[in-house]
Amino acid sequence: MIENKKKEIINAAILIIGNEILSGRTQDTNTRTIALWLNSIGVKVEEVRVIPDIEETIIDTVNHLRKINNYVFTTGGIGPTHDDITAESISKAFKLNYEIHNEAFNILEAYYKPGEFNEGRQKMVWMPKNANLILNPTSGAPGFNVENVFCLPGVPSILKSMLGGLKNKIVGGEPILSHTISLRTVESEIAKSLSKVQNDNQDVEIGSYPFFQAGKLGVSIVIRSENQSKIDNCSSQILGFINEKKIEVVNR
Amino acid sequence: MIENKKKEIINAAILIIGNEILSGRTQDTNTRTIALWLNSIGVKVEEVRVIPDIEETIIDTVNHLRKINNYVFTTGGIGPTHDDITAESISKAFKLNYEIHNEAFNILEAYYKPGEFNEGRQKMVWMPKNANLILNPTSGAPGFNVENVFCLPGVPSILKSMLGGLKNKIVGGEPILSHTISLRTVESEIAKSLSKVQNDNQDVEIGSYPFFQAGKLGVSIVIRSENQSKIDNCSSQILGFINEKKIEVVNR
Repeated sequence: MIENKKKEIINAAILIIGNEILSGRTQDTNTRTIALWLNSIGVKVEEVRVIPDIEETIIDTVNHLRKINNYVFTTGGIGPTHDDITAESISKAFKLNYEIHNEAFNILEAYYKPGEFNEGRQKMVWMPKNANLILNPTSGAPGFNVENVFCLPGVPSILKSMLGGLKNKIVGGEPILSHTISLRTVESEIAKSLSKVQNDNQDVEIGSYPFFQAGKLGVSIVIRSENQSKIDNCSSQILGFINEKKIEVVNR
Repeated sequence: MIENKKKEIINAAILIIGNEILSGRTQDTNTRTIALWLNSIGVKVEEVRVIPDIEETIIDTVNHLRKINNYVFTTGGIGPTHDDITAESISKAFKLNYEIHNEAFNILEAYYKPGEFNEGRQKMVWMPKNANLILNPTSGAPGFNVENVFCLPGVPSILKSMLGGLKNKIVGGEPILSHTISLRTVESEIAKSLSKVQNDNQDVEIGSYPFFQAGKLGVSIVIRSENQSKIDNCSSQILGFINEKKIEVVNR
């Protein structure tokens, strides 16, 4: 009988907003930060998109992604300059007024020294009406969420510091567990045996990733599931054929 | 009169195929590599998507992106293991047979020592019928393109080594030029003046990016256009207000 107790997957999309990523000027690292964090609370990232700072594109993409995902996380475009158009675009996506958020205003008024809460900084308190704030322990200016769309800044260190405060707002499923077996071999040596293990364990995700380390080739096999015993089962099947083939397991 | 000699933009999408990026296990760097290279030959990346190793998702996404972009570049999923399903998925997207590519077969047969061109490696010569090969100077196994869809491997060093051989297949527009001015300031100090420069130069893309360097805050202003004199014009307007505000320009 086929296992049918499989839990519902809680899924998410990440939407990186910013011309600087598309031009190659800036290396995105926020995807990985958010994905690792979501994994740890049982949310599976099923899609990432990087789009330019164009209002219509932001509106259309957000409206598409929020309907097919439990959660959408955007990064970038919530600062004080002319190219920061995420908050206004999200307002339009949800057909909400784009207006001064009183709580955000009070936070930033208290955060800056008297006289420093200037016009540029005040732009950062304009948000979709009734947005929920995401507090920013690093630099004051909050992110926000409307329904299932969570808007975070683009600066990686600031974004990282804000994820902790989000935990209570995200309801995940079972954390997705993983186990990695790294081998001194090449993929073609293990392809057939690994394929058999995958066929015998269709509800477990098995990935194979070649690597170079200290001038030598290797392959990491990554087994992913919400169920530890399924991972263990796969793992012993893999170690079985590895032993037969006399392939060396390496630390990585 | 509004400038109307603007050249047609040659655009591209990058499609990163791989569960390992979505899970956060692997940091994608191929987007930046491809984007910088495309920029240098006058192709503008307008969208990046990261999707899982799921055939239907690959087919649908490729078929969508190839219709709205001059070029699509995929990375990942062309190796020898069971999770390498890009070549078969592309075949289905184009409704082409998925079959042994004779030229690729000959290349790999010559590349490997006698007896080493095993079943696993032979999987890498299965491609969409009549695909054009993209040669691989690093590890033998070629990528391929069908029409405007170019399929590259996921391993960054191998991918990098294959871009040079692609140059004659890609017809770009004017290279997109850029100039960066880095300042010892915060975004809110320059937001209003920068916004005015952007309004006065609407066909130039001006981005503002905060940074931390040696414990100090700064902002990089990036000006992008195909036209050097437009960049120079913007640049001098920006240096104008920077001088007035007595903001320090820094090297970065």
